Amino acid sequence: MAKNLQELLDEKGSAVDLLRNSQIGSYIYPVVPSDFQNWIKEQTAWRNTAVLYDQSHHMDNLFLKGSDAIRLISDTAINSTATFPVDKAKQYVPTTAAGHVIGDGILFREADDEYVYVGRAPAANWLLYHGETGGYGNLDITVDRRSPSRPYGHPVTRQYYRFQIQGPSAWAVIEKLNGGPVEQLRFFNMATMNIGGTEVRTLRHGMAGAPGLEIWGPYADHDRIRDLIVEAGSEFGLVPVGSRAYPSNTLESGWIPSPLPAIYTGEAERGYREWLGADSYEATGTLAGSFVSENIEDYYLTPWELGYGSFVKFDHDFVGRDALEKIDPATQRKKVTLAWDAEDVTKIFASLFDVEGTSYKFFDLPLANYGSANYDSVVDADGTVVGHSMFTGYSANERRALSLATVDPNVPEGTELKVVWGEPNGGSKKAAVEPHRQLEVRAVVSPVPYSNVARQAYQGGWRTNYQSA
Amino acid sequence: MAKNLQELLDEKGSAVDLLRNSQIGSYIYPVVPSDFQNWIKEQTAWRNTAVLYDQSHHMDNLFLKGSDAIRLISDTAINSTATFPVDKAKQYVPTTAAGHVIGDGILFREADDEYVYVGRAPAANWLLYHGETGGYGNLDITVDRRSPSRPYGHPVTRQYYRFQIQGPSAWAVIEKLNGGPVEQLRFFNMATMNIGGTEVRTLRHGMAGAPGLEIWGPYADHDRIRDLIVEAGSEFGLVPVGSRAYPSNTLESGWIPSPLPAIYTGEAERGYREWLGADSYEATGTLAGSFVSENIEDYYLTPWELGYGSFVKFDHDFVGRDALEKIDPATQRKKVTLAWDAEDVTKIFASLFDVEGTSYKFFDLPLANYGSANYDSVVDADGTVVGHSMFTGYSANERRALSLATVDPNVPEGTELKVVWGEPNGGSKKAAVEPHRQLEVRAVVSPVPYSNVARQAYQGGWRTNYQSA
Repeated sequence: MAKNLQELLDEKGSAVDLLRNSQIGSYIYPVVPSDFQNWIKEQTAWRNTAVLYDQSHHMDNLFLKGSDAIRLISDTAINSTATFPVDKAKQYVPTTAAGHVIGDGILFREADDEYVYVGRAPAANWLLYHGETGGYGNLDITVDRRSPSRPYGHPVTRQYYRFQIQGPSAWAVIEKLNGGPVEQLRFFNMATMNIGGTEVRTLRHGMAGAPGLEIWGPYADHDRIRDLIVEAGSEFGLVPVGSRAYPSNTLESGWIPSPLPAIYTGEAERGYREWLGADSYEATGTLAGSFVSENIEDYYLTPWELGYGSFVKFDHDFVGRDALEKIDPATQRKKVTLAWDAEDVTKIFASLFDVEGTSYKFFDLPLANYGSANYDSVVDADGTVVGHSMFTGYSANERRALSLATVDPNVPEGTELKVVWGEPNGGSKKAAVEPHRQLEVRAVVSPVPYSNVARQAYQGGWRTNYQSA
Repeated sequence: MAKNLQELLDEKGSAVDLLRNSQIGSYIYPVVPSDFQNWIKEQTAWRNTAVLYDQSHHMDNLFLKGSDAIRLISDTAINSTATFPVDKAKQYVPTTAAGHVIGDGILFREADDEYVYVGRAPAANWLLYHGETGGYGNLDITVDRRSPSRPYGHPVTRQYYRFQIQGPSAWAVIEKLNGGPVEQLRFFNMATMNIGGTEVRTLRHGMAGAPGLEIWGPYADHDRIRDLIVEAGSEFGLVPVGSRAYPSNTLESGWIPSPLPAIYTGEAERGYREWLGADSYEATGTLAGSFVSENIEDYYLTPWELGYGSFVKFDHDFVGRDALEKIDPATQRKKVTLAWDAEDVTKIFASLFDVEGTSYKFFDLPLANYGSANYDSVVDADGTVVGHSMFTGYSANERRALSLATVDPNVPEGTELKVVWGEPNGGSKKAAVEPHRQLEVRAVVSPVPYSNVARQAYQGGWRTNYQSA
């Protein structure tokens, strides 16, 4: 039995095969009930009234303490830490020595020498590893892992509850809860407010221009604080959002939560792979979608490809700096939203009722992903792969199937491309994949965050060698 | 604040309005994870290999002890108890004084004076009420209610775990677990078997002709017994079924789990309504679907209409006997499966992507119900309501949308009728109902359990006054 990721890779031979055939099952947003009303009403509430997101359970929380914490962060982040005062948050992005993204998450500076990382496991594991092995004398790290995917009636607890109050009416709910005005700080600034006699910490957040707050505190207060928010919000149409609708909000806001951590190759990361358990996210995760390459490195992404180019700051040394300095940002793919063609998406559903045929890959609503990392090929009229479609679902606000993708830099907005939906050869052996066939779905390249753009009528569609006028 | 159902009805005025606008949210099959693989693979496994159903959480368990237990059962059941030996089970069906069905469930005779009722709340509440008020001197009843719909990380426990091992390979799994042959008793006979050194109780069950077992024991053994079954079953392709796929199995087997309990009117049931809490299933349940009548009695069903005609035995006195004796079974609606038209169902999905229009009622897969009791109008070519469609979803084995319905007795198999999908006037105020419009969906009257029948080409379709040749 493999004791760590490196041994597992040595045993299996192929990282791609390992991840494409993982038996861990669907990627679950755990513990929070699937719905409170229904997912359509919950989606429309975040656009039209107000919502309560419960983010208490689906992310790792990493608590970094000590005077060396900022050094660890600076040594591993593409981001500058030159300005990182207490009560500010940053989107932390680490890269490998080769300059590929490992993951990302939010870093909260809660006190002078206290930081909390909140996000998926890959960046948390990277911080843990370097914290343990990097010679940081004055550093204490503890981790509170995401909740189990299938608690099955067993009790679940966390260190913090974590909520967001969002939507056009969010601030009215917040001020009612606080019993008076709450100062609207700038984005990602932290403060406090009062809920039911308890002072809670806040992070200024927002969606689609409407101010909102993330709030957190000891998990023991979870139910009480939640009930107070739901009760105060009801007059403003606040709806608690269930775990079914929740992850689809990013289709509208444009964050890609799920790049494959670029750590399966590279001599510089061998020690890390030996440190990562055979039961880690990296070893058990699921790689899904139509894009299949024998070379796992073809799934790796640079910060620019994920829309993090503006975070890259060469004002400090960090893992990956040398590699990133050699990259011309103009050559890099760019993050876009793809607006899927209604007629083609309907074909996917129609195939369920085709008594004779094989269905296309089931497109679950509102989130259609079927892996922890999703890579569907985006092709042009020549059939050339010009990008990856990485997070797919449906927005009842836009009334469209949408995906977040990264595409070649010369592809203009309004271009019609095709997403290859479903895996080749009838589908992989992943637990969450049923036998299916593939379909090419037309999709229009659109902005991030999404807004509708007219399709430009290219003769025969976008081609690899297209030169823009 | 109303203290019981009767007060609530007096306050609201209309039982139909109360139930059609309940805010309790979707009817949930709780605690069991949504999926282990995905719902399509889990559905196909029960047809092709073997499955583990976990029925531990979604039903009330009522424990009846004492020499009067059989009297209570006999006094309230349409079923005969003339033959009800120890180690046998019966499908128990109680009716009101007017002869309408209250609910149903399985009654297990576990020992001389020990019975366990397993099923939804309505029949459990009816047994509890009559047990408490009917002057049964030697009777002890305790109830273990279904698990909470949204446990949200809080621990959940029951008195019994309850599993079924079903499918064509079920018996091979059962005998492997037992370490040797297990006698195939007749349907609904009880015995024991051995799992991991523990003797567990069994009920002979089966699906589509293949023998299976229901097994149960103390809930403390839940995880251990489950793990042993999953492990033993893996070589036979056994798949544990999640709560998403689970309730859709009845679309293939033909049991209607969800009649509205016929207890909202009738002087004879006034005492019962005063006994039922304002937080009871009966007071908080959701009535969903296109069939809307101001008269709640239009939702009531007789045993024949639900396919329980053969259970009615006038060899004993029971509540409802006088009314049922006056009914000519030939006049009663009959239970059928409706096979929905592929093209029309596809329209429902296509409407999600219609940027300009309003969607049809969302058809969730594989279970499309949006209430605890579901009544969609089934109409003929004249627009006359000729039945109720009561349990709706999709079978990946049949590759069709199906519903279980009760229709007029003169409608032959193969007839094309229409199901009105969605609620009138944009939809009710139920928490689980989004704004939508209605669609008439063609559907072919088919047998229960379902098998495909060719549509008969009636000129203009089935009409109210049609006389069969």
